[in-house]
This record gives sequence, C-alpha cells and structure tokens, in this order.
Amino acid sequence: MAKKSPLPKLRERDKATLGKLTGLADAVAKSALAGREPKVEIPLRTKGNTTWDKKRGILRMGDATADRELFNLNQAKQFMQTMLHASTIKDLIEIGKTSSLRGVFYKAKHTVAGTKENTFDGQEESDPILEDLEVTLGALREELHIFAENRGTLVGNITIIDKGDEINARKQGSGGWGIPSIVEADVIQFGKCEAKFVLHVEKGTVWNRFNEDRFWEEHNCILTHGAGQPPRGVRRLLQRFNQELKLPIICLLDCDPWGHYIYSVIKQGSISLAFESSRLAIPEAKFLGIRAADFKDCKLPDAVKITLSENDIKRAKEIAAYPWFAEHKAWQKEIAALLDNGFKMEVEAMIAKGVSFVTEEYVPQRLKAKAWLD
Amino acid sequence: MAKKSPLPKLRERDKATLGKLTGLADAVAKSALAGREPKVEIPLRTKGNTTWDKKRGILRMGDATADRELFNLNQAKQFMQTMLHASTIKDLIEIGKTSSLRGVFYKAKHTVAGTKENTFDGQEESDPILEDLEVTLGALREELHIFAENRGTLVGNITIIDKGDEINARKQGSGGWGIPSIVEADVIQFGKCEAKFVLHVEKGTVWNRFNEDRFWEEHNCILTHGAGQPPRGVRRLLQRFNQELKLPIICLLDCDPWGHYIYSVIKQGSISLAFESSRLAIPEAKFLGIRAADFKDCKLPDAVKITLSENDIKRAKEIAAYPWFAEHKAWQKEIAALLDNGFKMEVEAMIAKGVSFVTEEYVPQRLKAKAWLD
Repeated sequence: MAKKSPLPKLRERDKATLGKLTGLADAVAKSALAGREPKVEIPLRTKGNTTWDKKRGILRMGDATADRELFNLNQAKQFMQTMLHASTIKDLIEIGKTSSLRGVFYKAKHTVAGTKENTFDGQEESDPILEDLEVTLGALREELHIFAENRGTLVGNITIIDKGDEINARKQGSGGWGIPSIVEADVIQFGKCEAKFVLHVEKGTVWNRFNEDRFWEEHNCILTHGAGQPPRGVRRLLQRFNQELKLPIICLLDCDPWGHYIYSVIKQGSISLAFESSRLAIPEAKFLGIRAADFKDCKLPDAVKITLSENDIKRAKEIAAYPWFAEHKAWQKEIAALLDNGFKMEVEAMIAKGVSFVTEEYVPQRLKAKAWLD
Repeated sequence: MAKKSPLPKLRERDKATLGKLTGLADAVAKSALAGREPKVEIPLRTKGNTTWDKKRGILRMGDATADRELFNLNQAKQFMQTMLHASTIKDLIEIGKTSSLRGVFYKAKHTVAGTKENTFDGQEESDPILEDLEVTLGALREELHIFAENRGTLVGNITIIDKGDEINARKQGSGGWGIPSIVEADVIQFGKCEAKFVLHVEKGTVWNRFNEDRFWEEHNCILTHGAGQPPRGVRRLLQRFNQELKLPIICLLDCDPWGHYIYSVIKQGSISLAFESSRLAIPEAKFLGIRAADFKDCKLPDAVKITLSENDIKRAKEIAAYPWFAEHKAWQKEIAALLDNGFKMEVEAMIAKGVSFVTEEYVPQRLKAKAWLD
C-alpha cells in the first residue's frame, strides 16, 4: 500500500477560509438548535445585482441575496448540496490538496442512504453550488482549493517561482511555461523581472508567431495567451503583474465582438464573476488592436474580410451598450467602425502583409505611438 | 521600421523538404513544356487505402493515388490551391519561420486577378490541401513549417533542450512545460533523463492531481497529458521518448470508447494520418486503465457510473472490430466488459475512494503488478 502523507501545516490563506467554512456551519447549527429554520444567505449572481463601479472601473456584485432553507421543499436539495460541497472543501484544505470542479462533483455524488435519490445528477448542478459557496464565503475558488483546467502559456523576461521551483521564463524554448489555474501569492511568487510590459494575445497560434520571432526579447516584455477567453488563472496572473510589478497589460485581440468581449472581461470583469472583479479585473488594460481602421491603414487585401453575421452585429450592439463602453467615446467609435466595415478581421490576417509583419511592424509601431484604446 | 532578420542557414531537414518541393514544381513544369497535362499524383487518405501492418503494429497508407490535373474543370482549382500552398511553404522554409494552418490559409487567400473568384473560401478547403502536400511530398506537416495550436503539458525527471534553452522539467512548479507543436530532433533534444517511464494521462485536471502529488518524483517518471486526443506534437514527443530513450509509454485514460480510441491512436496511428504512423505511432504503448473490472475491483460506488449512450455502444463495437483490436483477445474482453457493465467511468471517478487514491494506490499497484493491456 502507498504511504500516506502527513497533514501539512496550514497556510494563512487556508486558515482564513477554514474559519469562514466553520462560521457557515456554526450559523446553521446554531439556528437549528435555537429551533429556527437552518438557512444560508446566498448573494445573487445576476445582471440585476451587478453594478458598474465607474470610479474603480470594474464590475461589482450588489447586496441582494436569496435565502436557501433546509425546510423548504424547493430548496432542501440545494441546501444539502451546499453543505456537502462545503464539507469536501474543508477536507481538501485540511489535507493541503486541490481538486477539479469535476473531482469535487464526483466526491459529493452518491445515492442518499435509504432512497433512490442522488445528491447530484450532473456536474451542471454541482458547479453553480460551488460558485454559491465562493460568493457566500467571500472566498475565491482558488481559496477553496478548486482548480480549473490549466490553459494559457507564458514566456518572457521574468523569473517565476512556482511552489519553490524557479522558472526562468526567458528559457522556455518554443513551448513556454503553462500558466496554472491557481496563481495566488503563496503558490506563485515573482523573481527577477526586466520586462516593461505584458503583451497578451488571444490565441496560441499567434503566441507562437511572437515567440518564434523572440518579440519578448527584442521588446523586453512578457508574452502570454489565454487560448481564447482567458481562464481565471491567466486573468489573475495578469492582474498581479499589473498591480505588483506595475506592468502595463497590452492586449492584441481579433477585431470582432468576441475580441472586444475578451478585452472587456480582462479589463472590467464579467457579470457572472462580478464578485471577483477586484481580484481579476485590470482597469488599466489596453487594447492595441486589431482596430477596424487597420484594414485601410495597413492596406490589407479584401481576402482578410470575414462578413459580420447577424449574431456578430447583435453582440457588437450589446457590447456598445455596456455602461463601461457606453461612456467611452473612443470605444463607441471603434464599435461603430466595425459595424460600418461590415466585416471582422483576425490577428492572423496580418500574415497577408508578410509572415512577421505583425511582430516586426504592426505591434512595434503601435507600441511606439502608444496607439491603443484604454 | 522594424529591422529585417537575415535569412537563416538552412537545416538538413529543410534542405530535403525544399528539394521535394522543387521536384514537385519541376515535374509540373516539365510536363507542361512537353505538351502534357500538368498534374500531381496525390496518395489517397481513405479507409480503403489504409492497411494494418500487423508485423509492425501500425496503420499504414496504401499505394492508391489520384491525379490532380490542371486542365480538368473539377480539379483545376485544387491544383492551383496545391501550388499556392507549396509556394507559401517554400517561402516559410527559406526564411526559417513557421506558421499555423490558419496563417497559411490567410497567406494564400486572395481574389484571383481579373475575376471574382477566391483562391480559398474557407479554412476547411485549405487544411486538406496541406495534408495532400504532406502525403505527396512524404514530409510531415512539421517539416513543412506548419504548426498546430500547442496543447498538452509535461513535467518530470528529464531535461529538455528546446531551441537551445535548457528546460529542467523537474522544476516546472504547478504549471508544467507546454509541449510545442513541432518537436523534431533539430528543435528539441533530450538532456539528462533519470525517468524510467512516461505516464500519459488524458486530461489536464488529472495531470494536475498527479503533479500536485509529485507522482513523477516518487515514481521516477515523466508525466504528460494531451488535453483529450493528444495533438501531433505530443504523440511525436511520446514516440521519441519511447524510441530514443527506450521509455515505456503508459496511458491512463477514461474507461469509455473515447479513451479506447485515444489509446488506439497513440499506439497504432489513425486512418486520417496513416501516412505518418511510422513517425507517430507507438506500438509498445500500454493501457493501464481505467479498466471495466475496476468498478468491482476498487469497490467503487454506484455514483461513478455513467450509462453508455446508443452512440457509445456503437463506437465500442466499431473499435472492437478494428483489425488491431479484433485479433487482441484481452482487448476483446475489455470492450465486452465495458458493454456488459453498461456504463463508462472517468479517471476522476477514483476520487470517490479518496482525493489521492488514484496517485497513491491505484496507479502504483497496477504499475507494480504490470497490470496493463498492451
């Protein structure tokens, strides 16, 4: 049989989270003993309970909550599910391990003794309960020891210390260092950093172009991508680069509503994760391109045009109406120019001007001229 | 303006590929000058032209070809597309750069002068032309300087040299080293390696579990995942580990037809890439689990069962009929046991027995007993 590891010493962050979990359980027990209905107050993660904090430049969750009661037929199952997951998380923290959303689902999934009722039927029931716990406890998912699939890669002029391992991001070859899902300061620390900014690109294939041309070396930066909409690990790491190392975060995304939305999430946060904006959003993030005007400015050929679909047009208008875009004149112009063009363009389209046009001319010129939206 | 890099010295591999490209162009030119119809012979990438090489234990492409002619109304466009891509690839090789499938598509996409006809309408037209060139030239996509999205991560007791950078895979923290798309020997070399085998797992979340528990350190191995069906870069790297370092490749995949298919592709190759089997397939690869019998053997709870869908049953029967499974008694039993169970199981299901059951008990016990299918 395999050896069992001894229980680890708890980190400060973990002690705090455990305290919150115990508080939750105590409150439930106390009201039950006092003859009151056991219940948990869950903050609402809805658009209606999301506010735009103009001063800080981020989305925030409002104060509205809903009760989840044990003695309510409609809520008893969710109440039980919430307690089950809270218990799994407590175990994970105590043994100093992390698990995936799917792992936590499997851990809690069983048939309730003496019945044919399952605690959870599918993971789609389980994930929202974990988000409920995040907001209720005011603890990030990472603090609950739950990780997502790792996604996104990094290379550049920085040394990163990850669980004690020194990762020299200047020496990661063509592969790069995989950005983990949990990047809090007790796991990931920053060593020597010469980089003056971060260039964040949308996709791995574009990242490859910049890495192959050693853009980060010539322009002294860190190069990241998030494989599309960046996962929480990437967003949190970018925010830490920005806040702790004071590095500007400069985004190179497609010229389409999806690219604009990715930028919006990086910069202001998202509605579904509004409760985490203060730890994920980067109000200073800049949008370097691709800009709608680039078609003419860069004399791109017609072949790079991709006609906007009905849905693209709808999304572009929705994004333009977001309060954080609505009051931003330059962004109103940008979205209007996209709609006026009637077509979108991908970063890869720049290859029409030469394999390395994007790394040797387009981005360096924009950087030099500080030609970005912010 | 940005500086232009001088043209690099060509590698041996690149000289060979350029020779093949020139040969193709010469043959076309020669037949045109001789008054014959310019044409290219393209080997067929169909199931009918795939044979099972029992002796070598890999799938192979047969000898059947189809002509692609310039003066054939149905083929003229594809002929032109083939030549366009051949030309882009020649350029890429000469400047020593690589590009993505999408990049090559954009490079070749334009409106034919004097017409309203596009060279390519979508990438779905472009990708098969690149595969045609691969088989016609007998050159891997990587040799044509075309990369795919990087996918998959590695950590473990090995040093890897990637474009001159020494990557100590023992010191990659929680993130791991991202496996690049192009891992040929002139880019990636192996340094010191203590590892005695490779454990390849299906998903990043499972990989996280094994990395967090530092399985690779305790069991002296390399730990990889391919984010589902592993991309070519991961398969090629695993094959190089197996052939050059003589490391067994041991796979931990879900107990379902998809897991079996992933194993089959790693081991014998796939029909669509049969022409590359000799550089991608690993006939010695082993399937450690999850096995259908594990439900009883590991005393797993009912909750881990996921009922097989109609489609799962169909796929399982198809896979059982593959010649390379059909003649394998243990695999016939395994697939019959899966169908008999009526349910599938994921690797994550092992969490029902404890967070680290899979890393501390399940896999170590199977390794010790050499309890795998091969």
